[in-house]
Amino acid sequence: MAGDPNILSDFILPANQSAVDGSFFTFTDMRVLIGAPEPTSFKVLKASLAEFPALNGQSVSTAVLQFPAGSVNPPHTHPRSAELLFLIFGSLQVGFVDTTNKLYTQTLQEGDMFVFPKGLVHFQYNVDSKYSALAVSNFGSANAGTVSVPNSVFTTGIDDNILAKSFKTDVATIQAIKAGLAPKP
Amino acid sequence: MAGDPNILSDFILPANQSAVDGSFFTFTDMRVLIGAPEPTSFKVLKASLAEFPALNGQSVSTAVLQFPAGSVNPPHTHPRSAELLFLIFGSLQVGFVDTTNKLYTQTLQEGDMFVFPKGLVHFQYNVDSKYSALAVSNFGSANAGTVSVPNSVFTTGIDDNILAKSFKTDVATIQAIKAGLAPKP
Amino acid sequence: MAGDPNILSDFILPANQSAVDGSFFTFTDMRVLIGAPEPTSFKVLKASLAEFPALNGQSVSTAVLQFPAGSVNPPHTHPRSAELLFLIFGSLQVGFVDTTNKLYTQTLQEGDMFVFPKGLVHFQYNVDSKYSALAVSNFGSANAGTVSVPNSVFTTGIDDNILAKSFKTDVATIQAIKAGLAPKP
Amino acid sequence: MAGDPNILSDFILPANQSAVDGSFFTFTDMRVLIGAPEPTSFKVLKASLAEFPALNGQSVSTAVLQFPAGSVNPPHTHPRSAELLFLIFGSLQVGFVDTTNKLYTQTLQEGDMFVFPKGLVHFQYNVDSKYSALAVSNFGSANAGTVSVPNSVFTTGIDDNILAKSFKTDVATIQAIKAGLAPKP
Amino acid sequence: MAGDPNILSDFILPANQSAVDGSFFTFTDMRVLIGAPEPTSFKVLKASLAEFPALNGQSVSTAVLQFPAGSVNPPHTHPRSAELLFLIFGSLQVGFVDTTNKLYTQTLQEGDMFVFPKGLVHFQYNVDSKYSALAVSNFGSANAGTVSVPNSVFTTGIDDNILAKSFKTDVATIQAIKAGLAPKP
Amino acid sequence: MAGDPNILSDFILPANQSAVDGSFFTFTDMRVLIGAPEPTSFKVLKASLAEFPALNGQSVSTAVLQFPAGSVNPPHTHPRSAELLFLIFGSLQVGFVDTTNKLYTQTLQEGDMFVFPKGLVHFQYNVDSKYSALAVSNFGSANAGTVSVPNSVFTTGIDDNILAKSFKTDVATIQAIKAGLAPKP
Repeated sequence: MAGDPNILSDFILPANQSAVDGSFFTFTDMRVLIGAPEPTSFKVLKASLAEFPALNGQSVSTAVLQFPAGSVNPPHTHPRSAELLFLIFGSLQVGFVDTTNKLYTQTLQEGDMFVFPKGLVHFQYNVDSKYSALAVSNFGSANAGTVSVPNSVFTTGIDDNILAKSFKTDVATIQAIKAGLAPKP
Repeated sequence: MAGDPNILSDFILPANQSAVDGSFFTFTDMRVLIGAPEPTSFKVLKASLAEFPALNGQSVSTAVLQFPAGSVNPPHTHPRSAELLFLIFGSLQVGFVDTTNKLYTQTLQEGDMFVFPKGLVHFQYNVDSKYSALAVSNFGSANAGTVSVPNSVFTTGIDDNILAKSFKTDVATIQAIKAGLAPKP
Repeated sequence: MAGDPNILSDFILPANQSAVDGSFFTFTDMRVLIGAPEPTSFKVLKASLAEFPALNGQSVSTAVLQFPAGSVNPPHTHPRSAELLFLIFGSLQVGFVDTTNKLYTQTLQEGDMFVFPKGLVHFQYNVDSKYSALAVSNFGSANAGTVSVPNSVFTTGIDDNILAKSFKTDVATIQAIKAGLAPKP
Repeated sequence: MAGDPNILSDFILPANQSAVDGSFFTFTDMRVLIGAPEPTSFKVLKASLAEFPALNGQSVSTAVLQFPAGSVNPPHTHPRSAELLFLIFGSLQVGFVDTTNKLYTQTLQEGDMFVFPKGLVHFQYNVDSKYSALAVSNFGSANAGTVSVPNSVFTTGIDDNILAKSFKTDVATIQAIKAGLAPKP
Repeated sequence: MAGDPNILSDFILPANQSAVDGSFFTFTDMRVLIGAPEPTSFKVLKASLAEFPALNGQSVSTAVLQFPAGSVNPPHTHPRSAELLFLIFGSLQVGFVDTTNKLYTQTLQEGDMFVFPKGLVHFQYNVDSKYSALAVSNFGSANAGTVSVPNSVFTTGIDDNILAKSFKTDVATIQAIKAGLAPKP
Repeated sequence: MAGDPNILSDFILPANQSAVDGSFFTFTDMRVLIGAPEPTSFKVLKASLAEFPALNGQSVSTAVLQFPAGSVNPPHTHPRSAELLFLIFGSLQVGFVDTTNKLYTQTLQEGDMFVFPKGLVHFQYNVDSKYSALAVSNFGSANAGTVSVPNSVFTTGIDDNILAKSFKTDVATIQAIKAGLAPKP
């Protein structure tokens, strides 16, 4: 679980590219955040392997998390890394559940950091009804991956009956949750 | 993600133990399965680090999964390993969801194997209404860990409001699911 | 020694294949075991990287070991993994030798498990003169590899003189052993 | 080079501590940055293993870098991780040198990120004569470590003659540099 | 198989030792080789974890191999590392067998190097009847470990019958080999 | 930091090569050292991945270091491995600096070994004014890499002003050092 594959070179060039300069190691996509209006729902901007190829083999990536007032980053896991969240402004209620099903929660204020251990279900919630919050999250993998519990379980076509038995509820409840999470046309 | 910590010795003795014999490397707790009546609900018997200390540093563990007719192993992840399931008898419907939210399913018959990749949400279901099924699952970690989605999300005390927002439903639905999953007195 | 190379994705597709479904993660070659007559000598059926490409990057594999009455799985090592053996039926005498040349043995009965630590010489023997035995062995690598001591040392063409000196015997004895192990025409 | 030692548990508790709550996973030392006057020279505030024990085994850490106008973070390496720098405000001239002695430089503006590959000499310079800059740097190790070239080479007592030969200069020049870097009484 | 456990510090001090100086990182046991008479049989002098504690966590060790004329280093494996042999003087016939039972051999002359891949059976033989040979072997683990095939298989008490079946010979031959390899009183 | 990427095979063949024999695992470039005149300045001869492709995936490499009387191997780091130096003849003054800026030094005599921990600045100096020295250095990576402090910092074009500020000296001193280190026409 410690991280990405080791590499035998200083860095990894993209296939068919034999030389690069400093711009290859630079990521400018976060500039869009500057002066932009706040999003209306929770939003993630990532600097990971897919967006920033120079991270290949470097075992590190970053994401910016924007939380409008009252918004939530639903329960999810990162299969390939822990997450070290740094709250730049606002406040957040955060938590994770370990493999013994014990919940750990904390209310963070501006400047606080919180570490979500590897592979565990966790969430963040901006309980404030008026002010937004912004966090920078760091990962020890170039591609930590995200498994969103609501989407993974309820929007991918898993059989209603399996889910009803799993959540010890009826098919109607499962179908209602599925309908609520389905992408709106 | 490749596995457990490396070790610098052939094996690791428990603290305060300076010598062992062959019995230390032997695990007999699975004998209880022989001739035992079938369980009435889905049941897991594990041979992992906690039950079998000789596995420390050996990056391998095993579990026996018993599926009475119609029973389900609810959606869950293993944070520290892939799972290679071997269906000894019966039939199973299995599936997992990757980090792009694509579902992969298969109906397994006796003698089939299925690999659930590391860290992803997966489930198994004995769709048969009459016959039970039994599988042996192998892990590439001495302590793969299990994150049960229903238990982790709905029985650990995560705030109703956070869950309602996360699953885009109302608090009453969350409370109904929590009640269904709560341990019966 | 902890395992296979880490991967930066959920799974690894074969070259030139851009999409797969559930069948890619399913292995059906073990079905031949069902209802088949027992082999007349010790036999291994593997589900490892070569036979089951979906295991690539998942750090796990499995083998089924069939032991007719009185048969032996000769001393061997697995260079890339420990082995966790699960005795499904029958009885087995098993053992391994650590790097200080200490032997650890055990007689296993149905339902027992035994862990052979990484990279050490080990063997299994069905001492029963009448009943066969069957075991499922799990590995923490998709390609644990096998180094058979008899074959590796005596059937590959290593010079008779080197072997005679190594085993502190004469060339005639080495040649006799080589002849016994040579494939029969 | 991929990272920290793997762990076999969700997280690692400090010795002699058997239970923790959410506060163990929370780091509040960065709060001092809020509203504080800017430092008069380059300054690093770290959230790594020493300051934040919950990072043990999680393969991630973070540092806040403050650059007053005209200040420099001298050439250094991190022996245990790459660095992914995120420029929160201001501008920075950054660079690193690979093992073939090729220099890669870039001028970063607010919102830019730059990755310094593992183990290579790198630096950051706030060329602006008026405005300060602030960056958040992420590491794929709980304890990336820092080897400052000026301090490591010229303030630790390495023999003048060795340094003069190494830098192809005279002992007087070495002594002058040592004097400049020596801590002021 | 890539190596030793990662460490989170520059080096690892022995338990109950809080500071060391340069001598801790120095190993002087090889000095005995200087001017010493040649051994009368193959001999190994090791600088590994047991002899040189500063190697803990550094993933490297070294051995000096002395081959009197006509002597052999019998078939063996190193469970935790490849071996890179550097022939300082003399000549050697070397070889290893891969997991497909293919033998690779080479006759080395003074100054040659040969790499024995991880975990495979290999040997070295000084075919010269007059001159000795000396090699320095490097390992990518602080404790590569050695499994000597003759000793591991024939001097540890493995049952004669198991060995006779394994090597497809009779018990008398096994007992003769065991007698030859047994330590002389 | 423990090493190279793991491999899933016994060894790695070069692209487009389907079979090799023993010569592939043999490295003969060190033969040039035999009977050759001593170099006039410090010189390194390497057997690493670039020179010896069979090392790919084997996590080990070696270098021969030749020190004419009075010569120095300037301060440098190896980003991907510790170094275990074996002094074959002559004497050497060696040292390294840890991440707390503590210097560890030792004077080695013939037959001594010294381990330079991973990623730290270190040097070797043949203080003898008359006799040369020769060492064999072992690495736990097939491509340890070398970051020479003088070359990396002063010959790659890093801005004079950045260096002057970093070393707390003036631009003239920086330029003088650069001139001294610049390759002579």
